[in-house]
Amino acid sequence: MKRTSRDIRTANRYEVLRQIIAESPTSRQELAAATGLSLATVATLVGELLDLRMITEVGFEDSAGGRPRGLVAVNASGGALIGVDIAETYVHVELFDLALNVLARADEDMRPGESLPEQVVSHVAAAVGSVVAQAGIEGARVLGVGVSVPGQVNRDTGISEYAPNWDWHDVPLLDLLSEVIAYPLYLDNPLRAGAVAEMWFGAARGRGDAVVVNLGTGVGAGLALGGGLYRGVSNSAGEWGHTTLVLDGRLCRCGNHGCVEAYVGAPGIMLNLRELSPQSPLLHPEDQTATIDALARGVSAGDPVAVKVVRETARYVGAGIANLVNVLNPEIVVLSSWVARSLGEPLLHEVREAVGRHALPRPMAATRIVLSPIPTDPACLGAATFALEGALQSVGQRKAPSAKRAAPARAGRTAPPS
Amino acid sequence: MKRTSRDIRTANRYEVLRQIIAESPTSRQELAAATGLSLATVATLVGELLDLRMITEVGFEDSAGGRPRGLVAVNASGGALIGVDIAETYVHVELFDLALNVLARADEDMRPGESLPEQVVSHVAAAVGSVVAQAGIEGARVLGVGVSVPGQVNRDTGISEYAPNWDWHDVPLLDLLSEVIAYPLYLDNPLRAGAVAEMWFGAARGRGDAVVVNLGTGVGAGLALGGGLYRGVSNSAGEWGHTTLVLDGRLCRCGNHGCVEAYVGAPGIMLNLRELSPQSPLLHPEDQTATIDALARGVSAGDPVAVKVVRETARYVGAGIANLVNVLNPEIVVLSSWVARSLGEPLLHEVREAVGRHALPRPMAATRIVLSPIPTDPACLGAATFALEGALQSVGQRKAPSAKRAAPARAGRTAPPS
Ligand SMILES: [Zn+2]
Ligand SMILES: [Zn+2]
Repeated sequence: MKRTSRDIRTANRYEVLRQIIAESPTSRQELAAATGLSLATVATLVGELLDLRMITEVGFEDSAGGRPRGLVAVNASGGALIGVDIAETYVHVELFDLALNVLARADEDMRPGESLPEQVVSHVAAAVGSVVAQAGIEGARVLGVGVSVPGQVNRDTGISEYAPNWDWHDVPLLDLLSEVIAYPLYLDNPLRAGAVAEMWFGAARGRGDAVVVNLGTGVGAGLALGGGLYRGVSNSAGEWGHTTLVLDGRLCRCGNHGCVEAYVGAPGIMLNLRELSPQSPLLHPEDQTATIDALARGVSAGDPVAVKVVRETARYVGAGIANLVNVLNPEIVVLSSWVARSLGEPLLHEVREAVGRHALPRPMAATRIVLSPIPTDPACLGAATFALEGALQSVGQRKAPSAKRAAPARAGRTAPPS
Repeated sequence: MKRTSRDIRTANRYEVLRQIIAESPTSRQELAAATGLSLATVATLVGELLDLRMITEVGFEDSAGGRPRGLVAVNASGGALIGVDIAETYVHVELFDLALNVLARADEDMRPGESLPEQVVSHVAAAVGSVVAQAGIEGARVLGVGVSVPGQVNRDTGISEYAPNWDWHDVPLLDLLSEVIAYPLYLDNPLRAGAVAEMWFGAARGRGDAVVVNLGTGVGAGLALGGGLYRGVSNSAGEWGHTTLVLDGRLCRCGNHGCVEAYVGAPGIMLNLRELSPQSPLLHPEDQTATIDALARGVSAGDPVAVKVVRETARYVGAGIANLVNVLNPEIVVLSSWVARSLGEPLLHEVREAVGRHALPRPMAATRIVLSPIPTDPACLGAATFALEGALQSVGQRKAPSAKRAAPARAGRTAPPS
């Protein structure tokens, strides 16, 4: 919670690597200009990243009248990162190079009823094995595996404290995963994974205070405040989905009434549709994705029921986002996850109008509201980024980036000898 | 927004002085143990504070078997700080020594209609003159004057961007004040003043993430996150009073419907009472303070109407605080300002129950909810603390703490030659 000089050094290391990933090749001078760090600090951090083989020297550029400047670029093949997105109905896994290009993907569907931790873990292990095999890389080059699992997560102990979709309580997920996956493991939830993905590669890059609103089956907000991920005292900040918007309103699955999620989570949107038009052909009672996609197509086609449902949903989303704008005064609000992607620009347009009706003018004027620009699964990308951050955080604690058994203190977990 | 090494040094300086104010006399070793800083860092910071004459050497204590340890204590008479609380109906000013003892107080009542900036400024000048005269100190020993004014404040430019009570727009308040007050001036609003007071001297001291909920005529939340004051991108974070709790509910003075403030600001509480019992003798239609005090006495006496109004009010406060608990996952929530002080323990009890009904169990379990332990006006104390922080922030920028004309960059404003 309290930030130390060590946190600052780690944050600076992230920032330099972020900049190199965004703009390769680049010089130390350009990095200093882009990050606001001193040239001496940049030189030190670049040296560390070169030692880790995360970046390489790629030649020189002329500088006007001066000595040629050394250029560095991200060393895409210097290692691999794996992101795991565990959702209610599927496990999605992507393997990235260090430039965060996707080299391989694997999906595992989970059948209804498949909710035991051991079942989920075996799907994850299969998909991780699949992407490593597809990419044809040596295991030693995998720097780490980030895992996103819904609900309350204790990232230090690796325990899934509460997963509402499966009613998990205190499942030692990282211990179970480490029995079948021999790479350093990092656990967190999709809200924080989404926020980190936006901070590194998306709309929150270079923004001081950002809110990443996840609109999916469940809803919540990842908070990137003061240039870093905000977690709260027990790593459960961001439960915007369970803030009360309509006192004594609809019953929510959390037991409270009138939560944001009860109106704007995918099941809530289906209920909005059912209340407006019980017999609507847009409604696929057992299929959230099909219903949301039908709504999106309906809006494109000018179907008045679809338009009205999206407007009504946006009214709730907008009032809820206005609450975040008033409390947090962010520079940017990013709409992410599959419902936001499916409903897209029409939803964004209505949400902006609704936020404008509810937020105070001053914080409203300071805020932009955008759709996530990340084209792939943000939870996967964010989870992989946790693994990248883990590797960067352990600088000085271990020499080679692939030393699988070194345990970075508190940052992640490492596989036991297997 | 992004924190630098310089911010960390400033924060460490605050922390060491906070600890010395809390526990004088103390040794460098004890300070290192209490703050988690290295002995070398503590020694440097103590040296700076000695140079500023904010603390003094006060002797030695034996250490078991080792050399005697030098003791330092706050130098109460090393300077004076003035806090100004500008409210809707009064200006309250206190003068503090460096141990933050109140040496003098002055109050100025503002008549209804007295709302021009010049009128407010002349009240402030009179009260500041009065406390300096009462305390019998030399002007040169006043390190600074912190000013708390309601609404949206730009602390860098010293402009009151919007004060809802007087409908001020973009009033250059600090320029106006500096024409009549010849001390360094620091401007902010009561939400942030209250939060800083709790961080330095109250219930948030030593807590990582804290929310200070102000319950007065207006309501809002000061946010102390990650050990520092959270301001948002344009210094307007914390407008919890204007978050929607009852979609399409009561009209609020901000123009939105169903805001927290519409139900729990003093006028909202009066409306709660009127709706329940239009002819209640507890109601003093033109006097918020008298009505709230009557409710407090009524609850003590077991008056069923008073009990019911406080319970109903607490239900709104509690649901609103649950929203903050779910989004921010704070370690502590502090209830502050005059309505909270007047309604006291009975309100606290009902609020705790209500938060428990609305918040998620995990963040709820990590949070304590308490009344502010600060016995005096928290906005005054917090405003004076802004002046103290300004003096500490300017270390290295000027030699003597009383050099009135040195302009601490961005932190505050200084009087022109007069
Ligand atoms: Zn809920
Ligand atoms: Zn309002």
